[in-house]
Amino acid sequence: MNQEECIWPAGFRAAGLSAGIKSNGAPDFAMLRMDHGAVAAAMFTTNLFAAAPVQISRQHLHNSRGHASVLVVNSGCANATTGPHGYADAQTIGDCVAQECGCAHEAVLMNSTGIIGKRLPLANMLKCVAPLSQRCVEGSVEPFARAIMTTDTRVKMSTRLVATHSAPIRVTGVTKGAGMIHPNMATMIAVITTDAALEPHELDAMMRVAVEQSFHRISIDGDTSTNDCVFAFASAQRAAAADHKELQRAFCEVARDLAHMIVCDGEGFTRAFEVRVRGAASAADALAVSKTVATSMLVRCAITGGDPNWGRLLAAAGRSGAKLDPSLLTLRVGDISLYHNGQPTETSKEIAAAEFSKPNVMIEFHLGLGLHDDFFISSGMTQEYVKLNSEYST
Amino acid sequence: MNQEECIWPAGFRAAGLSAGIKSNGAPDFAMLRMDHGAVAAAMFTTNLFAAAPVQISRQHLHNSRGHASVLVVNSGCANATTGPHGYADAQTIGDCVAQECGCAHEAVLMNSTGIIGKRLPLANMLKCVAPLSQRCVEGSVEPFARAIMTTDTRVKMSTRLVATHSAPIRVTGVTKGAGMIHPNMATMIAVITTDAALEPHELDAMMRVAVEQSFHRISIDGDTSTNDCVFAFASAQRAAAADHKELQRAFCEVARDLAHMIVCDGEGFTRAFEVRVRGAASAADALAVSKTVATSMLVRCAITGGDPNWGRLLAAAGRSGAKLDPSLLTLRVGDISLYHNGQPTETSKEIAAAEFSKPNVMIEFHLGLGLHDDFFISSGMTQEYVKLNSEYST
Repeated sequence: MNQEECIWPAGFRAAGLSAGIKSNGAPDFAMLRMDHGAVAAAMFTTNLFAAAPVQISRQHLHNSRGHASVLVVNSGCANATTGPHGYADAQTIGDCVAQECGCAHEAVLMNSTGIIGKRLPLANMLKCVAPLSQRCVEGSVEPFARAIMTTDTRVKMSTRLVATHSAPIRVTGVTKGAGMIHPNMATMIAVITTDAALEPHELDAMMRVAVEQSFHRISIDGDTSTNDCVFAFASAQRAAAADHKELQRAFCEVARDLAHMIVCDGEGFTRAFEVRVRGAASAADALAVSKTVATSMLVRCAITGGDPNWGRLLAAAGRSGAKLDPSLLTLRVGDISLYHNGQPTETSKEIAAAEFSKPNVMIEFHLGLGLHDDFFISSGMTQEYVKLNSEYST
Repeated sequence: MNQEECIWPAGFRAAGLSAGIKSNGAPDFAMLRMDHGAVAAAMFTTNLFAAAPVQISRQHLHNSRGHASVLVVNSGCANATTGPHGYADAQTIGDCVAQECGCAHEAVLMNSTGIIGKRLPLANMLKCVAPLSQRCVEGSVEPFARAIMTTDTRVKMSTRLVATHSAPIRVTGVTKGAGMIHPNMATMIAVITTDAALEPHELDAMMRVAVEQSFHRISIDGDTSTNDCVFAFASAQRAAAADHKELQRAFCEVARDLAHMIVCDGEGFTRAFEVRVRGAASAADALAVSKTVATSMLVRCAITGGDPNWGRLLAAAGRSGAKLDPSLLTLRVGDISLYHNGQPTETSKEIAAAEFSKPNVMIEFHLGLGLHDDFFISSGMTQEYVKLNSEYST
């Protein structure tokens, strides 16, 4: 989809600017305003070192019973593991934003992304709150999307329209990556907005279904950061009700677009791959096999090299903990069957290599044990990933 | 310890030669003979795609109720995911070995290590069984150790003596690595031998204690292979009984030596690191924190770069699932405290970097929650690892 067309739904205004957090002067402070308020939902990192802004957002969302008027996100510094001082910094910024936007404290949600263990440049950021608030405009998502980037190489946004009997409802999402190379910066943040009218519990459920099928089915390196968050907002600026199934589908599509953009971004990115599992004995088994194979270091290295080392796929499945019967299992890569009925097929290495070298490698396990399917998406592990993450903080 | 001195205990003879499995003509077929028989124990991979020789060894050990006369190991080919044909190949080799050595079928244990999904060169190997058997000699472990190597860069063996009232008892171990760079080749194989007299259940228990403190506390890449095995043999060729505690200690020391050699071997190896956890609320928590931190890709990349990015250590601990209270936690790297009582210390980046750049980085978490300690050892993730594993089969 053309990213020029990616605009906010009705009821949202946003801006981004440089508050001097990033040393290179790139935009690093973003604000999203809901002038008429919005129903809000969020999913927060399960990491016990949840960053100060995550702790505050969780509390605010609880106090407001699922409502918010403004979201601020900074990049370049995660404000995580910064102790009571870092917590006070985040509170001060939240108070300043509430005052500037004329809303209650708990109507402010926030997050930070960037290096862990560093304090925010508080004075600089406080000076930027008023200009940031004043610059907020309707329309393009791009300034907000750019200001939340860390080492992402491109902005990540997606939008869908859902027909109603009058003006269509819009669902727009924006994210920043835990891309190939920047998982510590990382801290995946996504924001999904709509002008539909939804109750807090409806928005929450819709977000969770979408996240389960998107951000929860990708992996960069298995590290859950201190700052991972998905926020969802519904502004109720479209009177007409959308069919909930259609709206859910739009949420899922936007979330999947964003998740795919995260996987495919990053210097050193070579190729994405998807592991599909069919016929597992249980839903948990279907997920276990797809996730274990997709996150195996050896599989991910082989994918980078376009190396048809399919034994690694079976070895990863075999250690997943899922119920498997090798004699019933079929393994396909692209259009080629490589293992069938308990033994390798007679596929030549050249033919297999062609499938492993496609830009998007499709791996499919048929377990033949039941009715449960699942999938997981990841990308090849590259030397650049290691290089960049070996030198990150210095 | 000087590896020249590394000899087999009394009652063991061994040899290695080239059976043409490896294309470069290096030794790839090894035999260990126990002429008077031996009590035997083994731990096998939990991978559901356990290789044919692993399945056969498991069955033989069960049938013999913990006794064996000969172990054969080949490198260069794992004979895994090779279906009924691969299983028949392994059986044929086992039968040939039993005939040559004049022992029962179930007195033969075996394993293979190397690439997954390929058949063994059966005819070549059968021709080599007689010469291999004839070449078996007492003394140096080196020929056996060399013939089980895959991409290991050096042989790995260790020995200890345990005093008795007459001749000392010897414990000797040999292993091949799932080193930094060769985890698919990998398939860690270790053999621990002693001339002590032990019942099968005693040997089994002694092996398991030693493995728990050594091979179960190291990680290269989290992939459990189709061929991982530890074998232990006791030949009862020393009449004097050793103190069981002393013998157990020798088993543990030999196993730890071997585990450390595995971590430190491999092209591209930069440095090892150890994560120690003290004061966890439970034994499971102590292991969860140490293992999660030691196996985090981001931590391992930082270690390679000597990058004092300690936020990654806390982030990994925070997602381990263990009970943690940031306000009670202290993180030390080497002699330096980096996080204490819920906040970062004032340590300069230079001082921290010096600790992260040592050849053996020591990371210590004090959780302040209970009495449980544990540890885990790993090595920095390197670009060479990714490069080699991207190109492995082609």
